[in-house]
Amino acid sequence: MRIVVDAMGSDNRPGPDVAGAVWAAREFEETIILVGDQAQIEAELAKEDTAGLPIEVRHAATAVPMDAKPTEVVKGLPGSSMHVGLGLVRDGEADAFVTAGNTGAVLAIATLRGVGLGRIPGVKRPGLGVVFPIKERPFLIDSGANADCKAEYLLQFGIMGSIYMARVHGVENPRVGLISNGEEEGKGTELVKEAGALLKASGLNYVGNIEPKEFMNGAANVAVTDGFSGNLIMKTSEAIAKYMSDAIREQMMAGPRTILGGLLARPAFTRVRRQLDPEEVGGAPLLGVQGVVIIGHGRSGALAIKHAVGQARLVVQSGVVGAIEEGIVSRNP
Amino acid sequence: MRIVVDAMGSDNRPGPDVAGAVWAAREFEETIILVGDQAQIEAELAKEDTAGLPIEVRHAATAVPMDAKPTEVVKGLPGSSMHVGLGLVRDGEADAFVTAGNTGAVLAIATLRGVGLGRIPGVKRPGLGVVFPIKERPFLIDSGANADCKAEYLLQFGIMGSIYMARVHGVENPRVGLISNGEEEGKGTELVKEAGALLKASGLNYVGNIEPKEFMNGAANVAVTDGFSGNLIMKTSEAIAKYMSDAIREQMMAGPRTILGGLLARPAFTRVRRQLDPEEVGGAPLLGVQGVVIIGHGRSGALAIKHAVGQARLVVQSGVVGAIEEGIVSRNP
Repeated sequence: MRIVVDAMGSDNRPGPDVAGAVWAAREFEETIILVGDQAQIEAELAKEDTAGLPIEVRHAATAVPMDAKPTEVVKGLPGSSMHVGLGLVRDGEADAFVTAGNTGAVLAIATLRGVGLGRIPGVKRPGLGVVFPIKERPFLIDSGANADCKAEYLLQFGIMGSIYMARVHGVENPRVGLISNGEEEGKGTELVKEAGALLKASGLNYVGNIEPKEFMNGAANVAVTDGFSGNLIMKTSEAIAKYMSDAIREQMMAGPRTILGGLLARPAFTRVRRQLDPEEVGGAPLLGVQGVVIIGHGRSGALAIKHAVGQARLVVQSGVVGAIEEGIVSRNP
Repeated sequence: MRIVVDAMGSDNRPGPDVAGAVWAAREFEETIILVGDQAQIEAELAKEDTAGLPIEVRHAATAVPMDAKPTEVVKGLPGSSMHVGLGLVRDGEADAFVTAGNTGAVLAIATLRGVGLGRIPGVKRPGLGVVFPIKERPFLIDSGANADCKAEYLLQFGIMGSIYMARVHGVENPRVGLISNGEEEGKGTELVKEAGALLKASGLNYVGNIEPKEFMNGAANVAVTDGFSGNLIMKTSEAIAKYMSDAIREQMMAGPRTILGGLLARPAFTRVRRQLDPEEVGGAPLLGVQGVVIIGHGRSGALAIKHAVGQARLVVQSGVVGAIEEGIVSRNP
């Protein structure tokens, strides 16, 4: 297997990206192709012990700026590491593409046929999935690729998410829920009501509307929503988790008794914080494009990059792309 | 001042509702009108020392079931405590209505002219606001009254929220933000883009798009969003806060050292939990109807009911309803 890692992806590129790629090459024993500025990549590689590791370097003249507008990058920056890396997957020279770069940019480039990979036939809109870092590990799709959605996109997110959870995470007949502001049928926006009717008739293991509480409790293995709402759920979760950690730390510093308590209890906090840490999760799969694409957090360190490569490997092995093609076609007569 | 309390509101009605009303009558020295089943209310009042307190009872033949569909209740249950209580406000016999009952039902009844209060002239859709129980106390509107919104509703939520925060919470020239999935202008759904343009031209102290992180940090005093997204933000916050509390407690039980630490640090947790407790916040004001309506959590205990009455009192005193009428008319030539 050959996995491309965008060396120019993370906020601190190319350090964590290269270190994570080396780590992955050693652990998974698959070929890693680092794409980006050759001189910078080689300088980073020189810091590591790479003897005997299956690592290749492919030069890319530019890197996508973190804050670049996707529309400007897609055709305006054809030599970027994202273009070159996705091109390798498109041309069959590699099996998967991993990046911690500008999410909007990689979505746009990957989705455009001829430039990146293009959509799987029949797929209306690729969806960005994410395994939520809580105990039940629910899969949220779309978590941010498509702000405005139609009901049929949501149906397809359900199909693709179900295939992903079954194949990659071994969940048998995944329960599919629809995010809404009430559990009762008929609650929600017009979009939710329409999508609910489609999902109910889909043959998926559809459990109906779920609220955030049910989502966190694992009422569904796959939670379907539009990219705007999915993004809000993800970012609100991150923001509240941080708020609570900070508030508890602050309150603990209020007196000697709680300071001592905090010191003694620290391992418990560390475990909870680590559980909720994006570093531990890896990346978000972009489902519905003609190839395997895993997008990591911009804050990714080497560990997160390594996890993302491991995830890409599982997705390739489990044949998700082919299964989605089959699943979408069979449901779109 | 005369404030109506729906005795048949909370999940455990009428106990907490009556106890909270008595508490409020004692603390605020305003007349409280308890509306609901007279026999049940009097049985609860008999448990309290109400000598000399300005409490009246008004009988209502029925109560709105917690899970009743709003559409079925509005005209189907005309003798409910919500109908009777809101009628007192409409007819000038009382100044405000407080309930911890079925939110959808009170929204529907209050909004319908002739049945409840009706909308303030010029208001397209009343919005449900909520002061978020975090340090910066941002106001989120709409938090659940209108799942599907148009841009002009969002503009009006901004106007009404701004008036509320200025008058009731004394915030000078409140900063108004628009919830989106990215801070840059142009990020978000079509609805967000349209509403952003209206807010920018509104004369409000508009600070642009805010993400959940900025919302939690207090980047805006008023955060405008549609009722579907607002509800997701609120419920995701509650769900994650509960998840973290449970996870920390569980991890602390893992060994003697962390158990001891947890015992010592308990006061710090209690303070954080209390800070985030809906009991402490009071209720959510419904803005845009012709009268003061405060809606409490179904789980409300006596303390929450008392807080909600206190909030209703502040809203009446500060003349929010008249100011909204003026503010909406002056911006809708």
